[in-house]
Amino acid sequence: MTSPQVELLIVGMEELHTMDPARGEGPTGRILDAAVGFTGGRVSYLGPAATAPEAARRVSAPGTIGLPGLIDCHTHSLYAGDRAAEFRRRLNGEPYTSILESGGGILSTVRATRAASDETLAERLHARLSAMLRQGVTTVEVKTGYALDEEHELRCLRLLREGPWPQRVVPTYLGAHAIPAEFRQDREAYVQLMLQRVLPQAAELAEAVDVYCDRGAFTLEETRRVLEAGMSRGLVGRVHAEQVDYTGAAALAASLGCASADHLERIDAAGIAAMAKAGTIGGMLPTAMLYMRDTAPPARQMIEAGVRLAVATDYNPGSAPCPDLWTAATLSCLLMGLTVEEALLGVTRHAGLALGRPELGWLTVGGPGDLCLMRPPVGAPARAETLVQHMGGHRAAMVVREGRVVVEVVSGW
Amino acid sequence: MTSPQVELLIVGMEELHTMDPARGEGPTGRILDAAVGFTGGRVSYLGPAATAPEAARRVSAPGTIGLPGLIDCHTHSLYAGDRAAEFRRRLNGEPYTSILESGGGILSTVRATRAASDETLAERLHARLSAMLRQGVTTVEVKTGYALDEEHELRCLRLLREGPWPQRVVPTYLGAHAIPAEFRQDREAYVQLMLQRVLPQAAELAEAVDVYCDRGAFTLEETRRVLEAGMSRGLVGRVHAEQVDYTGAAALAASLGCASADHLERIDAAGIAAMAKAGTIGGMLPTAMLYMRDTAPPARQMIEAGVRLAVATDYNPGSAPCPDLWTAATLSCLLMGLTVEEALLGVTRHAGLALGRPELGWLTVGGPGDLCLMRPPVGAPARAETLVQHMGGHRAAMVVREGRVVVEVVSGW
Repeated sequence: MTSPQVELLIVGMEELHTMDPARGEGPTGRILDAAVGFTGGRVSYLGPAATAPEAARRVSAPGTIGLPGLIDCHTHSLYAGDRAAEFRRRLNGEPYTSILESGGGILSTVRATRAASDETLAERLHARLSAMLRQGVTTVEVKTGYALDEEHELRCLRLLREGPWPQRVVPTYLGAHAIPAEFRQDREAYVQLMLQRVLPQAAELAEAVDVYCDRGAFTLEETRRVLEAGMSRGLVGRVHAEQVDYTGAAALAASLGCASADHLERIDAAGIAAMAKAGTIGGMLPTAMLYMRDTAPPARQMIEAGVRLAVATDYNPGSAPCPDLWTAATLSCLLMGLTVEEALLGVTRHAGLALGRPELGWLTVGGPGDLCLMRPPVGAPARAETLVQHMGGHRAAMVVREGRVVVEVVSGW
Repeated sequence: MTSPQVELLIVGMEELHTMDPARGEGPTGRILDAAVGFTGGRVSYLGPAATAPEAARRVSAPGTIGLPGLIDCHTHSLYAGDRAAEFRRRLNGEPYTSILESGGGILSTVRATRAASDETLAERLHARLSAMLRQGVTTVEVKTGYALDEEHELRCLRLLREGPWPQRVVPTYLGAHAIPAEFRQDREAYVQLMLQRVLPQAAELAEAVDVYCDRGAFTLEETRRVLEAGMSRGLVGRVHAEQVDYTGAAALAASLGCASADHLERIDAAGIAAMAKAGTIGGMLPTAMLYMRDTAPPARQMIEAGVRLAVATDYNPGSAPCPDLWTAATLSCLLMGLTVEEALLGVTRHAGLALGRPELGWLTVGGPGDLCLMRPPVGAPARAETLVQHMGGHRAAMVVREGRVVVEVVSGW
């Protein structure tokens, strides 16, 4: 086979963050005057524009900031219904656990999601994903967990698997999101349903298994059983941990070899040490923290202990109705004290690790051909830090997914 | 004169918030199945669609939420330069006063703004205002205060006055934003320059005078002198009060009959009582509070005392680099405890009062013909509460300014 022709070459960006510190300057591996070439869906050239090869299509993108396609590694985007009434209740000071107990919260979304047709679910998810793509997000993790019963959890996983979607969708089975209303008197029967009926089938459709381990949701022991069952079938393990109450779920996730533990507002030193040792990624969900009017997780302490942090939207209709990953990045700085570079790594390379997909979220020759080009806010220099500093309405100028241009905004060039 | 023909009639909205409690349901005066007609730039019909008159153009807007054109009553949108470096410094814990003292903060924007050409300033402001218009904001207050000297403050006011801009711009003279570097050794000389040279000319160009009364900025006594001089020339008085330190500026604003006092993180009970008695509007700037990682102003206490609250972006390149008024509305709920209706009034009718423009921000026959039609987030009902609950990327489906359609997004209808 002769050396493959470069199909698409992007040049002229003001800076390119490879997210590979071995490749460029600083923790985000920044290079100036870079070019990125794509062939067969993968990166085939990464280096100075001056020595870039010929290409079938050459795009000059002056004034832009290049980044690997962003990754939103924690979303609950597949749902029907709405929860504005719950927003009112929480503004009036009602705790989420009380809303849950009265059949609101997750369970109201479960009723609406079960009742929705495939077409409705797919159409709404597609619109949400398209908006994310316009912001440069080329990989979105989507959890189930608004269906809970066998029929509808598997229906949701099939929808997620089949698509087609505007970007890469990573389906996660989150049957253990809440105890469904019909099992309220016999939670063990629901755990058995997951373990014996749903998980064996879900393992063929999902990439990961996740459990919401918390007061009002699943116990530590239930969490262990569900994660072990899923991971033994080859799924990546993930967990919602230490959000409402401290449960020990983060340490459990570390001990089981889970890829990530998310939320972590109430993690303790032992949990942090366990995560650091195991390489478990900490998922920061600042929008959820903001909407829950919660305190911040000890992000700096985690980083200093060696835990790598991802940043995600947690997009869902109740506790985090904000699908904007750039806003989550900014909020991770403002609410949790991340630096600009930590926030950028959080929505790219560390997010890939949180998914158990270490090839995603950074640029390297032979790696996935996902790139986004962002324009800075009006009048600001084309530096990624201006995108993290400013909040609201960031849109990509161009998005490349698997080597193909999928978003291209002509105005301004 | 015969009764004027209705030029434009909007029907079919799912709900219309008139912001006139006498006109409809609840504090936002909501009516269902409403129609709004426009003639000669003003509202000429407001009532049931069934009895609406004939119109030259009739637009049916199913699935939308109607609101008076939104008002961003506190912005610093006219500037050049960028402050991403300051964002880094503040993330590292450096207080804003220390950044100010080292020539950063406002003063770095002053250098860039003075150095920028008229064309650059106008082009950047135009782009920022256009983005605001796309969100339904038909009135934007823009302060000077990044020029400070006579020549450039007046240049900025002339730019603001002349336009043309995408929406109504209300220019505010904020020469008393900071002591310029060249007057650092003689602040009284700068106050004299404002009082004797700049204010008399600014009063012909601006609608309001504003002072940043705080530690590191202007004293209470200086604030009084500048406000009195401006207000005696017919300008509306406004003040930045009680943000970094308690100074008594809110009570001063009330005693002078200012239209508004903004920020108010450190207001005391006496200041609240004075504002309530005088009818001074309290300006809530939640984005600034978020970026400054500050505590919340006592919003509920103010409301209970009878102070009406406006909500604005405070958009500026340093302490509030977020031009999204919908995000500010959501943050006013999450960070300051406003209700959904208080947030909606804050970005409409109360914002008009804060500008000393009581005719703006609500819908009434004979009033200004400014309307925005919003679509709810995907899958949510067309209720204004869903727009406040969700955060990020809200765009108007249609914007009417002075009776003319200035934004129209066809897709989705």
